[in-house]
Amino acid sequence: MNLTESLRASIREVPDFPINGISFKDISPIFLRPELIAATSSALSAPWRGRGITKIMGIDSRGFLFGPQMAVDLECGFVMVRKKGKLPPETISVSYQLEYGEAAIESVADAVVAGDRVLVHDDLLATGGTALAAARLAQKLGAEVVGFSFLVSLSFLNGHEKLHTVSPHIHAIIDFES
Amino acid sequence: MNLTESLRASIREVPDFPINGISFKDISPIFLRPELIAATSSALSAPWRGRGITKIMGIDSRGFLFGPQMAVDLECGFVMVRKKGKLPPETISVSYQLEYGEAAIESVADAVVAGDRVLVHDDLLATGGTALAAARLAQKLGAEVVGFSFLVSLSFLNGHEKLHTVSPHIHAIIDFES
Repeated sequence: MNLTESLRASIREVPDFPINGISFKDISPIFLRPELIAATSSALSAPWRGRGITKIMGIDSRGFLFGPQMAVDLECGFVMVRKKGKLPPETISVSYQLEYGEAAIESVADAVVAGDRVLVHDDLLATGGTALAAARLAQKLGAEVVGFSFLVSLSFLNGHEKLHTVSPHIHAIIDFES
Repeated sequence: MNLTESLRASIREVPDFPINGISFKDISPIFLRPELIAATSSALSAPWRGRGITKIMGIDSRGFLFGPQMAVDLECGFVMVRKKGKLPPETISVSYQLEYGEAAIESVADAVVAGDRVLVHDDLLATGGTALAAARLAQKLGAEVVGFSFLVSLSFLNGHEKLHTVSPHIHAIIDFES
């Protein structure tokens, strides 16, 4: 099996989680195989080599699983993006709409600076709301968003369209069309 | 500077966060330097080589930052331990006491099995409540807890004593005595 096939075989679909009608993609079986962790991390970094990335912004919490090793691979920094209230001051935050209500994410205020070239990373692209908010956070700090990196994309939710407003460069190793 | 000195210089102490009287240890500056991410990950894994570890249980969310790369280094699996409700079914959970009230953590139920030799990993050892609960989770699933791994230990909070009831093997790269 190639990497894509191995990953597909290692992602468990859980019907009706966290709510009815949603098929949750459980990536945890990937982490039971260290050779698959290493291969996935390399495959996530590969398309971004030579692109001058200076910071990876990884979204809490599954964006923390591969983000730091990607930063080692790309010889750049790794910045945590978390829900409001989790990071110590000074922080900078961006609010965004959820289906019902609003959420906010933040990063430490001086973790990203003007001139940084940022890659936003998370495990999964769904509607793209959180990744877009992370990109806005980078832009608010004066950085340029080079692109978006995901392990899994759920293309049927049209997150790509939302993110294209920031950057045309969106990479995911595997895609689910339903 | 050696690794310990570099890490100390990269940990920012934030007074009175998250509550008055607590000096928060912000590890995020470590992640701005990829060579320090790599060196820290290696130093976390080193004491556990040849100990037959089969699973690292990493605690949400900062235990996810180094845990997967440690699993690659130690050629074992990595298992996420999260707050109740975050992981898809079937899960197994353990409740534990907080200063005020109670919390519960879980892992996917078949992620750890009888015969596994488990290393519990988190970024920071404070009172040890969460790490102890993760160890109980491993034991509930029939595994043996070989030891505990942390980046930072706050030895003045006596977390070691609590964890010694499970295993005498507790490793932290750096210790704060106040």
